[in-house]
Amino acid sequence: MKVLLIGDIVGRAGRRAVRELLPDIIDEEEIDFVIANGENAAGGFGITKKVAQELYNYGIDVLTMGNHTWDNKGIFKFIEDDQNLIRPYNYPSGTPGRGYGIYELDSGVKVAVVNLLGRIFLDNVACPFEKLEELLNEIEADFVFVDFHAEATSEKVGLGRYFDGQVATVFGTHTHVQTADEKVLPNGTAYMTDLGLTGAVDSILGMKKEGVLKKLTTQLPQRFSVATGDTQFCGAVVDLDLENGLANSIIKVREVYQN
Amino acid sequence: MKVLLIGDIVGRAGRRAVRELLPDIIDEEEIDFVIANGENAAGGFGITKKVAQELYNYGIDVLTMGNHTWDNKGIFKFIEDDQNLIRPYNYPSGTPGRGYGIYELDSGVKVAVVNLLGRIFLDNVACPFEKLEELLNEIEADFVFVDFHAEATSEKVGLGRYFDGQVATVFGTHTHVQTADEKVLPNGTAYMTDLGLTGAVDSILGMKKEGVLKKLTTQLPQRFSVATGDTQFCGAVVDLDLENGLANSIIKVREVYQN
Amino acid sequence: MKVLLIGDIVGRAGRRAVRELLPDIIDEEEIDFVIANGENAAGGFGITKKVAQELYNYGIDVLTMGNHTWDNKGIFKFIEDDQNLIRPYNYPSGTPGRGYGIYELDSGVKVAVVNLLGRIFLDNVACPFEKLEELLNEIEADFVFVDFHAEATSEKVGLGRYFDGQVATVFGTHTHVQTADEKVLPNGTAYMTDLGLTGAVDSILGMKKEGVLKKLTTQLPQRFSVATGDTQFCGAVVDLDLENGLANSIIKVREVYQN
Amino acid sequence: MKVLLIGDIVGRAGRRAVRELLPDIIDEEEIDFVIANGENAAGGFGITKKVAQELYNYGIDVLTMGNHTWDNKGIFKFIEDDQNLIRPYNYPSGTPGRGYGIYELDSGVKVAVVNLLGRIFLDNVACPFEKLEELLNEIEADFVFVDFHAEATSEKVGLGRYFDGQVATVFGTHTHVQTADEKVLPNGTAYMTDLGLTGAVDSILGMKKEGVLKKLTTQLPQRFSVATGDTQFCGAVVDLDLENGLANSIIKVREVYQN
Ligand SMILES: [Fe+2]
Ligand SMILES: [Fe+2]
Ligand SMILES: [Fe+2]
Ligand SMILES: [Fe+2]
Ligand SMILES: [Fe+2]
Ligand SMILES: [Fe+2]
Ligand SMILES: [Fe+2]
Ligand SMILES: [Fe+2]
Repeated sequence: MKVLLIGDIVGRAGRRAVRELLPDIIDEEEIDFVIANGENAAGGFGITKKVAQELYNYGIDVLTMGNHTWDNKGIFKFIEDDQNLIRPYNYPSGTPGRGYGIYELDSGVKVAVVNLLGRIFLDNVACPFEKLEELLNEIEADFVFVDFHAEATSEKVGLGRYFDGQVATVFGTHTHVQTADEKVLPNGTAYMTDLGLTGAVDSILGMKKEGVLKKLTTQLPQRFSVATGDTQFCGAVVDLDLENGLANSIIKVREVYQN
Repeated sequence: MKVLLIGDIVGRAGRRAVRELLPDIIDEEEIDFVIANGENAAGGFGITKKVAQELYNYGIDVLTMGNHTWDNKGIFKFIEDDQNLIRPYNYPSGTPGRGYGIYELDSGVKVAVVNLLGRIFLDNVACPFEKLEELLNEIEADFVFVDFHAEATSEKVGLGRYFDGQVATVFGTHTHVQTADEKVLPNGTAYMTDLGLTGAVDSILGMKKEGVLKKLTTQLPQRFSVATGDTQFCGAVVDLDLENGLANSIIKVREVYQN
Repeated sequence: MKVLLIGDIVGRAGRRAVRELLPDIIDEEEIDFVIANGENAAGGFGITKKVAQELYNYGIDVLTMGNHTWDNKGIFKFIEDDQNLIRPYNYPSGTPGRGYGIYELDSGVKVAVVNLLGRIFLDNVACPFEKLEELLNEIEADFVFVDFHAEATSEKVGLGRYFDGQVATVFGTHTHVQTADEKVLPNGTAYMTDLGLTGAVDSILGMKKEGVLKKLTTQLPQRFSVATGDTQFCGAVVDLDLENGLANSIIKVREVYQN
Repeated sequence: MKVLLIGDIVGRAGRRAVRELLPDIIDEEEIDFVIANGENAAGGFGITKKVAQELYNYGIDVLTMGNHTWDNKGIFKFIEDDQNLIRPYNYPSGTPGRGYGIYELDSGVKVAVVNLLGRIFLDNVACPFEKLEELLNEIEADFVFVDFHAEATSEKVGLGRYFDGQVATVFGTHTHVQTADEKVLPNGTAYMTDLGLTGAVDSILGMKKEGVLKKLTTQLPQRFSVATGDTQFCGAVVDLDLENGLANSIIKVREVYQN
């Protein structure tokens, strides 16, 4: 059984990469389930019901979020109803939406998807280690996938190592740069520090270079907008072991769609 | 002409990877010049004269540093004399040591190596964009290599894009996780967000897992020590164009030496 | 000769405190010159030409700014023309506006006002120590006032101590909480870590409590708006020594205007 | 009934201020209970059994801590046994020591002391609002005192406002600069953003100026040592209302002991 993971989809360019490349990848790789990070899917900042629907239509099963979850106020209109949209689980109790979901495939296999937010250089949330440990005691699923949306590599690698053997996959998102460290850890958990950017190639993290460079060099506020042109699809394919709920392999994916 | 870049060498395990793997890589790839990040070479924290000498003996030509430059006080004893040790250029004026060096190869080619430190989530130093721009107006070299030791991908990708066409290569260090985004940018500069860890495979960023995990889960202070066992060599090979001072290609390298 | 310093003026409530209380303070204390921090004067975020003019009309001579300088885009329309508006001096070169001003009083006395931004937990700007040291070598004035807009007390106390004897006064802004440490340092510089909030009393830093508390407890984005009701005026009066350009005394001021 | 609060005691100079000034203050103000922050009591970094005992001998009843709790490893030897030493309550469960204590006075009055750590610009701990709310539902005491050891004024003022009417006093520590905002909030809780430094007057936050200034200007690592000379005692006296468990008044204290 194979699950495809897709890194932060940034704006229209990112959605176009999904539209043009996902169907073939699903076919060729015989993918059973697709999880994608959607925190930047709407204009680079947050998500809307329309954008989420568009991404589900392209073949994505579950969307995870991150520190940009609430950037677009449109999310408050549908997050309670959308069973396939997962925001960080370690937000305070009472936060709208859900921090994990359990999905039953046609085969009867149950896949749990959890979203966690890092704390180092990021947001003031509950401890991701403690929260995940608690959750794993509560839920039942054949495979658990954790999108650890975090900045610091120590925290990301640390979480992967800590839960090695307890979950099927820990994958990182947020940096918009794909890492080359995908591997199955010693106890069977597939791990990758960051899936990378799904969005415009000629960009800085999916956004137009000019605005970001002006911000970096002048420190003056800038309006950031989604870049255009050739667009890339970044992620990974995890091959799972039905006998132990762990992973046989993880292979990173990066494809470019020329505009 | 080819230059080999090596990511953060962490402790004895990292140095062993260099000793065992570097000579063959130099031979097979026909490398003309070797630049390595040495900020964690001595026990994971800083560098000493003895450790620097050991690394030069293995075939490294220039060592760059980062936020851990001063962790080992031994550096103050030799940094002024060692022409091949480069600490961040954007430290305050009056900082011991040098922030760049220009090296003439047997072929007569002049290679400049600059070390810069990021500011986002890192240290309070002068603007890396401004300082590099100034420096490029001052120095003369056939090829300029910039080790941008930084945390945030926005700042790293940003600096690469900003100086695209002006320097031969911008490579990142510091995260100890190799990225998969190596490429020649549109105007000819080779770029890679992070070269990755040269050190123990079964580790968190080169250090023993136990201490780092205890820190992450308990928040109590821990002593971190260098991990052992199989060790990896991470970096990249840049093929240069003698006609324009830019890059033809950049290919990432990751090799494991089994203990 | 006496100079009055006023802490961060937050929105309409802060401006009302200035309007109602400043004239009497100027009269009673026989104030010769008034410097106020205006970074939150327009609705809590930045400043506009109209708001600046209003504050000048109330008797303020010079407005300094801080990390909120650019929050209101209206500032770009008049910052180049307004000789009495001072933004942080340690912004990158090329930043609109001016980082210091020298003002000649009717008595012929020249007062320099410099605005600096802190780096610890704040913004990526040039070193405030280095920049001020350079500036003091360039300018000529009878008295130099430094508004050090910063977060960390180590950086604020440190700057005061470092320039003790070189400038008339180092005063802090930004925390919106008045400190009780006003004093003349051993070498004659008046110092105070923070002048405090000029704005609504029943508030969190001048803003309505509800929004700030919701942000702190839910981590969800909130709209912050200026609080109303009784309003306070915070600052300090510095008595200067015309013979040596230093200070005889500094006395903090806090008055409440009941609505 | 009156409780005396003492701000961060820094090293030998701070302890001397306590020794020389505390007995008279207790007598003159008719103090019933003394709470002091001891996170810097041993050489500026952490605390030891001997130092804690010394402070209890001077008349302190309870010592609270902060981000420097574990700086001196000596604490691990006695924290489990010392009922009067309180470390931040919002550390992870399993942390050595206790996060609050309830003390019965001779009069039969029960005083609870809670220590909380801030998250903004500080440490990755559990939400102080959530943890305190939980704790208040669990414990029974006549008066609750909260030492909120935090950096950002928004978080400190916010916590005071949030629990206004629910606890007797919220006082801040950590910045080593006394604030001038002591007051009884509308619903009866005494509040003060920071008690200030108990330690050497001619210093930067209690430490020798030279080292701190060198760190601020060179960014090179420095050894910080406790300053000497005249020493100050900073804190506040809270007068309590036995009928409602709230406060009648809070008056800040600052006294200097000339060496
Ligand atoms: Fe993202
Ligand atoms: Fe993110
Ligand atoms: Fe490193
Ligand atoms: Fe580093
Ligand atoms: Fe402000
Ligand atoms: Fe500010
Ligand atoms: Fe502290
Ligand atoms: Fe402290």
